[in-house]
Amino acid sequence: MIQFSLAQTDGAARLGRLETAHGPVDTPAFMPVGTQGSVKSLRQQDVRDVGASIILGNTYHLFLRPGDELIARRGGLHRFIGWSGPILTDSGGFQVFSLADRCTLTEEGADFQSHLDGARHMLTPERAVDIQARLGSDIAMVLDECLAYPATHEAARTSMERSVRWARRCRERLLALRAGDVDGVTVSNPGQGQFGIVQGGVFQDLRQASAEATVEIGFEGYAIGGLSVGEPPALMYELVEGTAPSLPVNQPRYVMGVGTPTDLVECVARGIDMFDCVMPTRNARNGQLFTSQGRLNIRNARFGEDDRPLDPACGCYTCRHHSRAYLRHLYMAGEMTAATLNTLHNLTFYLDTMKRIRDAIAFRTFDKFRQEFMLTASRLAPDA
Amino acid sequence: MIQFSLAQTDGAARLGRLETAHGPVDTPAFMPVGTQGSVKSLRQQDVRDVGASIILGNTYHLFLRPGDELIARRGGLHRFIGWSGPILTDSGGFQVFSLADRCTLTEEGADFQSHLDGARHMLTPERAVDIQARLGSDIAMVLDECLAYPATHEAARTSMERSVRWARRCRERLLALRAGDVDGVTVSNPGQGQFGIVQGGVFQDLRQASAEATVEIGFEGYAIGGLSVGEPPALMYELVEGTAPSLPVNQPRYVMGVGTPTDLVECVARGIDMFDCVMPTRNARNGQLFTSQGRLNIRNARFGEDDRPLDPACGCYTCRHHSRAYLRHLYMAGEMTAATLNTLHNLTFYLDTMKRIRDAIAFRTFDKFRQEFMLTASRLAPDA
Repeated sequence: MIQFSLAQTDGAARLGRLETAHGPVDTPAFMPVGTQGSVKSLRQQDVRDVGASIILGNTYHLFLRPGDELIARRGGLHRFIGWSGPILTDSGGFQVFSLADRCTLTEEGADFQSHLDGARHMLTPERAVDIQARLGSDIAMVLDECLAYPATHEAARTSMERSVRWARRCRERLLALRAGDVDGVTVSNPGQGQFGIVQGGVFQDLRQASAEATVEIGFEGYAIGGLSVGEPPALMYELVEGTAPSLPVNQPRYVMGVGTPTDLVECVARGIDMFDCVMPTRNARNGQLFTSQGRLNIRNARFGEDDRPLDPACGCYTCRHHSRAYLRHLYMAGEMTAATLNTLHNLTFYLDTMKRIRDAIAFRTFDKFRQEFMLTASRLAPDA
Repeated sequence: MIQFSLAQTDGAARLGRLETAHGPVDTPAFMPVGTQGSVKSLRQQDVRDVGASIILGNTYHLFLRPGDELIARRGGLHRFIGWSGPILTDSGGFQVFSLADRCTLTEEGADFQSHLDGARHMLTPERAVDIQARLGSDIAMVLDECLAYPATHEAARTSMERSVRWARRCRERLLALRAGDVDGVTVSNPGQGQFGIVQGGVFQDLRQASAEATVEIGFEGYAIGGLSVGEPPALMYELVEGTAPSLPVNQPRYVMGVGTPTDLVECVARGIDMFDCVMPTRNARNGQLFTSQGRLNIRNARFGEDDRPLDPACGCYTCRHHSRAYLRHLYMAGEMTAATLNTLHNLTFYLDTMKRIRDAIAFRTFDKFRQEFMLTASRLAPDA
């Protein structure tokens, strides 16, 4: 089972450690997204080398291909993909709502068609738990309803209440699995923990109610979901700030799908411990790179004869070996190596940022770090 | 300047060493193809790790993008791409004939349109030398005319004779560059050597005449070009066997664009020292993998639940870390990491094969090695 301990706080910012069956995670932590069993364009060794201790796998994709039962027969997701560290899996719900075809929602669950072959499937709270049990992730997420933005208070309340009922069904299913009361489901990782998810749209009262109901069910950790869906960053920070204090102090807090480097720092400042986002990896593949001096896009013609590294302050493989001129050439030439080199750099930037955040909290200098960070990394690079 | 020394022979097979301004190359050697400044899907460190000591760059691609003058301003190709070992560049001719649009050939050279933007360019023997001087490769190739297969004796003779005239112009241009008699061309690597190319289609008498004329011009090494263009392997081996003895014993011999693992062994058996081919890298991206037990295609459904490594006899990153089941999943899911892992494996197989060839020659057991190799690696894997 997973265990969380707080080592230090600095204001609302928290330094902690999450122990899992596959090793520890120092928090605040960023989880690179390995949708289909690989962080796109990287090897697992690369993911370790850039400093990631935990990765995220997408249940929707893995369920459809190669299938959770096949993965269970391989001994679970860790063994199948050759990643021996901790893994968190989402519930699959977000992709069912956003990626699948013809999704129909009922109290029972979500009926949808695979975006790959059109096959009909039903994702219920129980099934989301079973699939993740077969995958054997270290942290499983409950199935929640993903609310479109913007939504009325009424729609947000109705959706949030259903998410709470689904969360209860997810917890009951996991407890039944743990008790050995379910036939036909291989539990690949008996040490798997489960996180509840706070919903409620942009309404603080609903977030509050969701947090209380979710905590009452009782999980090994709590996520704040439904953020970074189009609302202004200031509103997101406000919602995080309002919600975090309602979550248990001694359990991990995870903001799902967030965010920019600034978002990470601002959410840590409001008491968040865990993050995941496709931004560093997806942006890398599009040529947008994060540096200590701000963002730049390597497609820009001005980099064509720029012999400097992407970021002189960065120690990643890419910055140690290659110039902006070469990286621009590889990108413009459509070489796959461009994606690899850019992804190595962006993930290093994200994970270095988390390391600096942890160090700042340890030395109780987080506020100073936060102010300096805002002046540099959260802008366009001066020469970009 | 490059220097070649023979250490040992075993029958016609030769063990040697090529010294270049960027380090030594033990021969027989295989050169991975890094068309646009990267071996597709790999980092330069990977290319070193799989055991490559020399790589090939394509002059046509680098001339068009990012341009040989830009590369010269970066200090040459080695510095631009971050590869400190030896590099061989082709003349650009093969791609002008096969890839460019509307190629028109005259005695002066080849007039063509870029396949990227339609811009008109003229590739003459002199220009092919100048471009490669700016790139600063360790070995530059002369511009030759690439004959279509099949061709009549008459067509092959006419083409071969033009190639000899072009070879003479290439040599004169290089000597002028070395003497400092050419303005406007930055020589990025004063130690660059130049190889002539024997042509003559499938006709032994023409190959013989071409070899004599090319050797008479005098180069630092000699290639046999125009092979592996559709002729049966047995005919290719026969042409290599007929041509190699006409080339100087104390200079390196390179068969261009060859080939399968079997081709490498058979050409070494006929006195060849150097090879390049896209086969290990391109096939990897298509899921076709070379193993000590033969070829297999990872797309095959039977690998879906196969927990074994690709090749139990292989020590590459892929075979040490991952199962066939995972590799099949990555391939079917379209993950870029599939290309990387498959390319690492196939290049390791090719470069390990060269190492085993060199060891066999050193111990004068090459014939035994060759017989055993034919029984295993040059077939479909028994369970593939």
